[in-house]
Amino acid sequence: MIETITLEQAVEKLLQAEDILVLCHKNPDGDTLGSAGALLHALQAKGKRAAVLCSDPIAPRYDFLQLSLYDESWQPGYVVAVDIAGTQLFGEKSVEWGKRADLCIDHHATNSGYAGDTLVRPEAAATAEIMYEVIEKMDTPITPLIASCLYTGLSTDTGCFKFSNTTAYTHQVAARVIEKGADLIRLNQLLFESKSRSRLAIEQIATSHIEYHFDGRCALMYVTRDEIRQAGADDTDLEGITSIPRAIEGVQVGITMRQLESGSYKVSVRTLEPIDAASIAAGLGGGGHNRASGCEFFGNLENAKAAVLAEVAKQL
Amino acid sequence: MIETITLEQAVEKLLQAEDILVLCHKNPDGDTLGSAGALLHALQAKGKRAAVLCSDPIAPRYDFLQLSLYDESWQPGYVVAVDIAGTQLFGEKSVEWGKRADLCIDHHATNSGYAGDTLVRPEAAATAEIMYEVIEKMDTPITPLIASCLYTGLSTDTGCFKFSNTTAYTHQVAARVIEKGADLIRLNQLLFESKSRSRLAIEQIATSHIEYHFDGRCALMYVTRDEIRQAGADDTDLEGITSIPRAIEGVQVGITMRQLESGSYKVSVRTLEPIDAASIAAGLGGGGHNRASGCEFFGNLENAKAAVLAEVAKQL
Repeated sequence: MIETITLEQAVEKLLQAEDILVLCHKNPDGDTLGSAGALLHALQAKGKRAAVLCSDPIAPRYDFLQLSLYDESWQPGYVVAVDIAGTQLFGEKSVEWGKRADLCIDHHATNSGYAGDTLVRPEAAATAEIMYEVIEKMDTPITPLIASCLYTGLSTDTGCFKFSNTTAYTHQVAARVIEKGADLIRLNQLLFESKSRSRLAIEQIATSHIEYHFDGRCALMYVTRDEIRQAGADDTDLEGITSIPRAIEGVQVGITMRQLESGSYKVSVRTLEPIDAASIAAGLGGGGHNRASGCEFFGNLENAKAAVLAEVAKQL
Repeated sequence: MIETITLEQAVEKLLQAEDILVLCHKNPDGDTLGSAGALLHALQAKGKRAAVLCSDPIAPRYDFLQLSLYDESWQPGYVVAVDIAGTQLFGEKSVEWGKRADLCIDHHATNSGYAGDTLVRPEAAATAEIMYEVIEKMDTPITPLIASCLYTGLSTDTGCFKFSNTTAYTHQVAARVIEKGADLIRLNQLLFESKSRSRLAIEQIATSHIEYHFDGRCALMYVTRDEIRQAGADDTDLEGITSIPRAIEGVQVGITMRQLESGSYKVSVRTLEPIDAASIAAGLGGGGHNRASGCEFFGNLENAKAAVLAEVAKQL
């Protein structure tokens, strides 16, 4: 566990900074985007120039976050990485900026400490929980837009308050951002109740490949790059499909393997207590949380499956 | 809107009562059962005899509520109806007790006022929100079991904090009951995160048949009897699959056709505003509500599809 600075120190640095670039991780999810959006709007409210950069395209459903995207017309003076545990998560377009990050705000226990300063709280369900406190401490009003950004992070990283990372504090912060005007009816509809055609198609294909192992205690699902293309899906359609295998009755370890453009497989591990997902991923050179972890496997599908199942066997 | 007594009045009556029968509505859901369970355990903690009665069987997944069921070995002296808007919702086994209910605690704006006293708060997302305050005011400790009962009511009536009835206050109460020991990890898993293998299999098959019509404004999905058998699914596995087609982006009319044992097709229609689902079903001899309706079609799949799509065309 790396050393963390205090909330007060992080806020002091942000308030002193000018021309701030806010970085999101690749394959952006609601927490990296929502937390970055909240920080962006708070910094802009303080009269600062700020913009967001993400290596991968941002799904249109996140348009309401109103992210000002970095356009290279100015030179950042301070770089903040949001919800990014290690430099491998930046992606091509932002990795050079990521390497010189001045500050990282994150909730991953595995944060590698790559930034100049790191504010990390592994007990937070989402980076948005930490960002809520950062913005409160910045003494800038939590507008309805900032509240909606924070609600997006909180709700998406907890599966709408359903996952095991959810705490009493998560609900307290949710209550406060709803009071500040987070548009929870519209956001819940947008984030949890609707599905693109291509998302449905890729789920359909992925679930057709479900295999059960170890007496049904492990379910493994995969999608190849050809299938992703065939479904007309892009990476944003793939967000969250990793929760499908573990949700099956009797399953304690859910594995999702999706092929990347490079041909290698991104492996996502989701477990129920007491199975340690981080140990499974660690055996394959990856990392993550107790219940959710991941790694990348260079090799063909059958080899990748065999390697993953061998690690699962050690934990079951 | 009927007259409501105050929280203080309701608590005073409960504290004066002895031998208390707590009634749940028929087809019991998590709110009627969880709220009744919380009240039951609080009354028992106050040294009172109390039991729960429900006309319909209670699903095994609610065993953790530890409901003491009424066994007719004693005569109730006071009857409390929980989450029951009108006498038609009692069901055969409890309707006679329901008619002489002394107190009703409910959050339905349509409550008919059938009970001697009614504590009704239509702004509450769940009866459990009101029951939380009742128990706090009774000055009996909120044990982990009571907290889990209340969490069950809160979370099930809001679709785990996703539905439009959710408020900041719902999240505040959730935070408090989690602090009091509600077992949210186990409960969320039990109530929201699990899917049988056969349910997943039937969804997989049904979604493989999705067809889009009228420029994607209508999605039609079907499953044959052979496929239901092949998936090992029974009717409980098919519950709720009808929500799949309408949840697709751009779809205003979602149609699900499932073949019955007789060979005919049960057609379920789900629409978004302003499309009238009842009119579509009415054209096929069925009926229902504005957003959800159904009918039965005697004939082969292709004829059934053509007939349904002709009715959809009239409404689009």
